[in-house]
This record gives sequence, structure tokens and C-alpha cells, in this order.
Amino acid sequence: MVWNLTHADIERIAIGAGILGTGGGGNPYRGMTRAKLQLDQGHELRIVGLDELPDDALVVPIGGMGAPTIGLEKIGRGDEGKVAIEELESQLGVKVAATVPVEVGGGNSFTPMIAATQLGLPTVDADGMGRAFPELDMVSYYFDGVAPSPIVMVDCQHRKVIIRDVADSKMLERMARAMCVQLGGSAMVADCPITVRRLRETCIPNTLTLAHRIGDTVLTAQHQGDDPVGAICEVTDGRVLFCGKVVDVDRRFERGYNFGRLRIAGLGTWDGRTAVIDLQNEFLICRVEDEVLAIVPDLITLVDTERGNPITTEVVRYGLRVTVIGIPAPPQLTTEQALRFVGPQAFGYEEPYRPLKRRETVGWRV
Amino acid sequence: MVWNLTHADIERIAIGAGILGTGGGGNPYRGMTRAKLQLDQGHELRIVGLDELPDDALVVPIGGMGAPTIGLEKIGRGDEGKVAIEELESQLGVKVAATVPVEVGGGNSFTPMIAATQLGLPTVDADGMGRAFPELDMVSYYFDGVAPSPIVMVDCQHRKVIIRDVADSKMLERMARAMCVQLGGSAMVADCPITVRRLRETCIPNTLTLAHRIGDTVLTAQHQGDDPVGAICEVTDGRVLFCGKVVDVDRRFERGYNFGRLRIAGLGTWDGRTAVIDLQNEFLICRVEDEVLAIVPDLITLVDTERGNPITTEVVRYGLRVTVIGIPAPPQLTTEQALRFVGPQAFGYEEPYRPLKRRETVGWRV
Repeated sequence: MVWNLTHADIERIAIGAGILGTGGGGNPYRGMTRAKLQLDQGHELRIVGLDELPDDALVVPIGGMGAPTIGLEKIGRGDEGKVAIEELESQLGVKVAATVPVEVGGGNSFTPMIAATQLGLPTVDADGMGRAFPELDMVSYYFDGVAPSPIVMVDCQHRKVIIRDVADSKMLERMARAMCVQLGGSAMVADCPITVRRLRETCIPNTLTLAHRIGDTVLTAQHQGDDPVGAICEVTDGRVLFCGKVVDVDRRFERGYNFGRLRIAGLGTWDGRTAVIDLQNEFLICRVEDEVLAIVPDLITLVDTERGNPITTEVVRYGLRVTVIGIPAPPQLTTEQALRFVGPQAFGYEEPYRPLKRRETVGWRV
Repeated sequence: MVWNLTHADIERIAIGAGILGTGGGGNPYRGMTRAKLQLDQGHELRIVGLDELPDDALVVPIGGMGAPTIGLEKIGRGDEGKVAIEELESQLGVKVAATVPVEVGGGNSFTPMIAATQLGLPTVDADGMGRAFPELDMVSYYFDGVAPSPIVMVDCQHRKVIIRDVADSKMLERMARAMCVQLGGSAMVADCPITVRRLRETCIPNTLTLAHRIGDTVLTAQHQGDDPVGAICEVTDGRVLFCGKVVDVDRRFERGYNFGRLRIAGLGTWDGRTAVIDLQNEFLICRVEDEVLAIVPDLITLVDTERGNPITTEVVRYGLRVTVIGIPAPPQLTTEQALRFVGPQAFGYEEPYRPLKRRETVGWRV
């Protein structure tokens, strides 16, 4: 499969990636406009399946790092990804064949395409999360704990930081995060290229296609006057966890991340109850009266109740009518090895990971 | 001048560098033992004058970065400097001819020699401070504000961080410091090589020789039963600011530095008065009853009152009998341009820089 994105495709991926992003991954609208700009400038955004590339071709995982609130305010230059990949090629003395998202969620679905197109390269239809996560080590490519070293960080002034010979991916995250904070809270990060063979073994495949399908479903439902929330659940195997009005947003920038907590007062079936959702860039856990309805790595996503559009952590605010959807994590994220990196304990929770309840038992939206 | 150091030379430089270090630059005793180890392993520690090298030869300024307390506890591997220079050469595609200290103070007088000897190179008899300062931008080579980019940081696990294309030296300091904290509070830093021509224009010359002379004076006075403190003042144009007993040490590790404050209760002439000295890795300001006796960039150094041995910020403790010596800063540090980087305001003080009072007016030790 080789697929050249159109404006319409970009709009669909933006919605789908926003929903898969579980609140994070960078603002999807911002990502969409940056991607469309590439088309308008005559570039092609070319997506290829894993099977289009030879086994030993090198693919660069790349994405923006930082707190979503910062990403929204601190506008990038536009060529940070290209510069990062060129620096990485120069550091290693290699040529890469494609880019791949570290996370499909949010604006980071587009980041690898924008970098790739400026270098005349395609982007692989896969990612390392099937969603978004806040930390650099939370990528399925690195669930063996081996750090993607060297990495190259580039900011909007083309300042470059190259981190080499770091063995442990959690240490690499700490180092890169400290630098990201100094660079103003956001930076582009290109990871050490991996082979297509390794990518095939470790990735969550076809997630750009999935994001597109989700977005298409939402737009179709909106257009036809159907229920977009129900449509999202159909295509993602998701279930409605809660529905209500955002009554409190506590969100702060700390140690390079957005941390915070939302409170949602129930409406309809949920009247009189309050959902509490914790966030670290992404939504991590959803509780209603001390019952855990969903917890990482399962996806907790917030959408506009009427339209089904994603509501991300950097834009959520008091008064919005929202529906909380739980989506089962891809199986690659729920192995014992993966849970060390993306399970509740990795985020400091004592609660064990309990997969989302089956759809029938949760109950649907009124 | 070419000078191969002996064990006796190393001992003298350690004492002199400890005194010039104004409390910082890394523990001098630790530096001394590391330097002697090189001799014991058959290496030569070769010091050359600036005139021994051609104008366009490249010299690497290098030193350990971090808080002195950490440097004392976190033992280095021994070859971090060599690895950093090799990485720098590889990054830039150049060969360097020598190393030079960024600061003569403390253990960092030896750091460049140890790196150099492992590469078969000499070390230039000069430095960028004539003392020690806590920050990477406080080096006379960079008083034009242009950052020594790229720099290479290496830790004891040979983890490497390369920072490139940073224009501003204060920004570079912030980035490197954040990384230093993640690396456990200390790291080796090799700065972008500079030409001998540039070094000659910007350095404080012959400071290794000066350190040696100070150390020799102290040892001679100790041996002959003379007054070591008076001898230090003679050779450095220093003056005794205060003499007493350390009664309080408030010292903490914060943002990658040691910050703190000492209180010294006066003895003899100073009986009944208390000196207060602030520190950020190095001693910054000495006050007695709100009168400022000395302030950066002038050197404030603490020595054992009886023996004249330096007492550095990481080892100073309650009960020590100490003499506070003020030494005029080298003229390169007191220009208007230099004071932007190393004057009182650079450390957050509102007090203007007032050069040390002339020796006669301060009064000598009883």
C-alpha cells in the first residue's frame, strides 16, 4: 500500500489521532494545519505499509516532545524534524528510508510525515503506542528496555542536543526531558533508526489507517446526523464510561509535563455522580466514586458529547459537555513486559491493571 | 617553557589551586591523587607555555562540572576527559594540540592534564578564570557571550551528550547544567576547541605556575615554622579579611550547584564579630556586620589558620579554625564586559562590585 494523503485524509486522521491520543500527543488541530501546509507547498505526504520496505531499511521514529499546553503556545519552525533526521544521519553515517510515528496520538501522527516529506521520504503506517503516552521510553519499539540511543533533539532555533551511549530507556527519558524543559518545554526528538524487521516485530501496525477510519466515522456521523459517540465505539471497540459537564480543571506544567485532574459532573444516566480523571499529558485513570472505570494502558478519551470531536488535555475547560470513552489497549501494550513501561505502576499508581470491562456490562450513553 | 610535573609539583599545585579555587573547582586532594596516579602509571603530565604552540593550533578547554559535594562522593572513572575530547574531535573532524583548564581552581587544575596525558598531549599553562567559578559561561574565553558550542559531556558510564549550535553561553550553561543534574550531579565537559591565538587574547596566563608558587610558599612556611597565611598573602597580593572559628555551615545541593552560607565567629582581633560568607560552589561574598569585605570576582578563600591549607566548600565544617583571605581578581575579570558574567549581579547580588581594599587598610592577622 502506498497512500498519498489529501486534505480530506488529513482532516480525518486529525480527528482519529485526537481520539486515539487520549488527550495528548500534541494538539491535533495544530498538527492538521501543519500537515496541510506541506500539501499546499507542493509536498506529498506519502504513507507506506510495512511490507513496502525491505527488511533492513532504516526507519526513524520521530515525534514532538513536551507538554501539550506548551506545544499549543510555542509555535514550531516547521523543519525541526528534517534537521533532526539529517543530524542523526550525519552522526551515524547512514541514510534512512522512512519515518514512523512514536505515537499515533494527537499532532504527533503528522510530525513524522512532515519531517519525511521534506526529505522526500515516506512514513510507515504504524506507531509505537496505538495511542499517546507522555514519556520517551513508553514506546513498544523499546519495551525490551534498550534505549534508542543516539537520539537527536532539535528546537525552533535549531539548537541540537545529541545523546549517545545511554543503555537504559528510562534514563534516556530523564535526560531528554531535562533538556526539553531547558529548551522551553517542547522539542523535536528523532530516535535512533531501527530496521523494518525490528519495527515489524515491535510496532502497533496500521494505526494511521485506524486513525483515518475513526475520523471518517465521526465526520460521516456528524454529516448524517447519526450519533458520533456510538460510531467511535463501534470502530474502536470502545465503550462509554461517563457523560457529563466538566466542572473543574486543575492543570499545571511540572517537570516538563502537564499534570492535572479533571472533574466531570454526570448528566443523564450519570446525574448526581462525578468522574475524576488524572492526567500526565494524557488521561491516565478514570474514577467514579472510587471505582476505577479505566486505567492505563487502556485508552481514556474525551470527546464533545454532541459532535464526537476529541477534547485534548491542553484545551479541556470548564463547562464543556463531554463523553468519556474507554478503548481497550492494543495487545502489544498489555504484556507483562509492556506493563513495566506503560502500566499503572509506571505512572505511580498502586492500582493493578485491570482491562476495561466488556462493552455490555458498562452501559451505553442515554 | 615545557615542564613535566613531578609528585612534588602536583602537591604544590594542589595546594595553590585549592587556594585560588575560592572553595570550589572540585576537591584538590582528589585531583592530586588522580594526577599522581597518572605519573605512577607511566604517563607524563606536560605543561607548556602559550608560546610553545603555533597560533592556529587547537586547544580544548576542559573541566569537571557539578557540585563539589557530589564530586567528592561520586568517584570518576578516570578517562572521561579523554573520551570527551575524542568525541569532540570526531564531531568536528579535527585534531587538537593541547588542553587548557577552564578554571585553575581546585581539582579542575588537574582535569585537563589527566585528559591530555591519556592522549599524549600537553596542557597549556593558563586558564579562563584565575580562580574557580560555578558556571560554564563564566570563563574569560567566552566573555564575548559566544557559546563554546559544540560541547561534549561525558559521565562515568561513558554516556555522552553533545550540544551543538547554541549561540548564547548562558543558555548553554542552563542546558548543560540540567543534563549534569540528570547524570548524577557531575560530568566532564569538553568545550569547543579554540585557537592558541584566541586563547592568548582571552586567557589568564601562567596560572598553573602561580598555583605552584602559592603551594610551594605554603609548604615552605609550614616546613620552616613560618606563618603560611602571611606567605600566601605575599605571593597573591592577598589580605586577611577575618579570622575565627566556623560556627555554622548551611550547605545544600540545588539546581546542580552547592548553595549555602557559612558563619565564622571571630577570634583575636575579630573577637565578638561574625563573618558571613555566601557560596555557590565557590565563596561569593564575605560580610561582617553588613559591611561587605569582599565580593566576586575578587577571590575569597578559606584556609586553615595554623597550616595555611585551603578549605573548600565541600569539606568546610563546624569547629574549624579558619582565616579568610581576600585576593584581588585578575584584571581580565573586572572589565565591564567580564563583570556581566562574573560580577555580583551575575550571582543575583544588588551590591556593586567594589575592588578589595588595599592591603594596608584591612589590617593583618594577629
